[in-house]
Amino acid sequence: MIVVKVGGGTSLNIDAVVADLVALRASGTDLLLVHGGAQTTNAVAEALGHPPQFVTSETGHVSRRTDRRTLEIFEMVYCGQLNKMWVEKLQTAGVNAVGLSGLDGRIFEGTRKDTLRIKVDGRRLVLRDDWTGTVEKVNTHLLRLLMKEGYFPVLTPPGASTVGEAINVDGDRAAAMVAGAFGAEALLILTDTPGLLRAFPDESTLITEIPRAHADQFMQYAEGRMKKKVLGAVEAIAGGVRKVIFADGRIEQPLSRALAGGGTHIQ
Amino acid sequence: MIVVKVGGGTSLNIDAVVADLVALRASGTDLLLVHGGAQTTNAVAEALGHPPQFVTSETGHVSRRTDRRTLEIFEMVYCGQLNKMWVEKLQTAGVNAVGLSGLDGRIFEGTRKDTLRIKVDGRRLVLRDDWTGTVEKVNTHLLRLLMKEGYFPVLTPPGASTVGEAINVDGDRAAAMVAGAFGAEALLILTDTPGLLRAFPDESTLITEIPRAHADQFMQYAEGRMKKKVLGAVEAIAGGVRKVIFADGRIEQPLSRALAGGGTHIQ
Repeated sequence: MIVVKVGGGTSLNIDAVVADLVALRASGTDLLLVHGGAQTTNAVAEALGHPPQFVTSETGHVSRRTDRRTLEIFEMVYCGQLNKMWVEKLQTAGVNAVGLSGLDGRIFEGTRKDTLRIKVDGRRLVLRDDWTGTVEKVNTHLLRLLMKEGYFPVLTPPGASTVGEAINVDGDRAAAMVAGAFGAEALLILTDTPGLLRAFPDESTLITEIPRAHADQFMQYAEGRMKKKVLGAVEAIAGGVRKVIFADGRIEQPLSRALAGGGTHIQ
Repeated sequence: MIVVKVGGGTSLNIDAVVADLVALRASGTDLLLVHGGAQTTNAVAEALGHPPQFVTSETGHVSRRTDRRTLEIFEMVYCGQLNKMWVEKLQTAGVNAVGLSGLDGRIFEGTRKDTLRIKVDGRRLVLRDDWTGTVEKVNTHLLRLLMKEGYFPVLTPPGASTVGEAINVDGDRAAAMVAGAFGAEALLILTDTPGLLRAFPDESTLITEIPRAHADQFMQYAEGRMKKKVLGAVEAIAGGVRKVIFADGRIEQPLSRALAGGGTHIQ
């Protein structure tokens, strides 16, 4: 089993990812796709007059402020526009894809963190009515049920809280949990860089190999959105995934080339 | 098995529908939910600067012009905003709901009609690049698979064309096809009226009983959106559904009261 995580970056070569998924699947590889949509969500939120807000926690983490209206826009983009785009592309390529959010059947389940402690200009504030959380449990039963019958699950945030509310969960860390829950052979994270870079954005500084025992030391090289991806990788490795690969999602045959050694391999 | 179709009308009592679904399900009734979202789609399309367009076919039928951008907005609202709203409400009420569009696993499959022949001011025009179709086949395999394991499918348009493209399909007629495919005991269509009215909008002119053999003669009483609902009812009856009920979705216990005799019963 290989879990593929595709970001929402607009420079990704989506048709190349689809063609490669179809080819790998035809060769008998068990696959699961998890996709994001942060960039598109920002654009739609702007267009709908509810621009994205990002907050910095007391511990220095940057995250999206997810009030109820943001959650609704998030669902429109992740579960509507993008999930159905992936499903349609796979269906027209002959794969019987089934698009699901982590809320459906509680595929991604975790505790809701309804209060955010943040820092603004050095002052501490508490934000309530937030709809975020972290995936703690994956409904592998539902995913296995579908895969066994030949369906190809295409997964996306949000997740479900322990009482069934929709929560904004990080897609990379959700994909890491899925890979861990299945004891996957590999978690393949496609981004708009060639992999993890020692000196971002200089692509000639690609780190090709990271020994699994030292994965967390490489957090220092992660910039911006890449931080959560490396955190996801560290969690996946800790959860029993054999290999995590950060690879370039802008090129042709992005999956095959990553599995053949491209990008950053953590193992 | 009872198939419940809920329109996208904003005056529907959604929480009452959810509470009643939960109660009926707990009493052992097999249920499937199909929902729409036309009204909300119109509002979001306006907000995103791509206002809805309706066209009249040569034969006099009014339908939504579904260009590619409209299809995307349609998916955002039906599959994102509204489908996940229903799933979240059911999940928080303790039902393990799984939201799916008709594109997923090709649950609603039909032929795409990519060319619309319309009349504008008496002149004939041909519109191309349209993404609409009619459901001809229901993937009961996937729905049975989920229901057998205790999941509650929450279905919504779009559907899939025979080659896997997303197509705008009518929700009422899709629900009728689902009810027919399962040989359902009843198809229950909730709207924002007490049922089919002999003199719309006068609610005192409710038609309470229609003999199944004469269902199509009642098309004359259907106004606007109700036309497709009655067409769906006629198709459901022809497809072997034992009973079609048009009932009020604005009241408390809308399902139980409809099943106990409320609304318009076609049988």
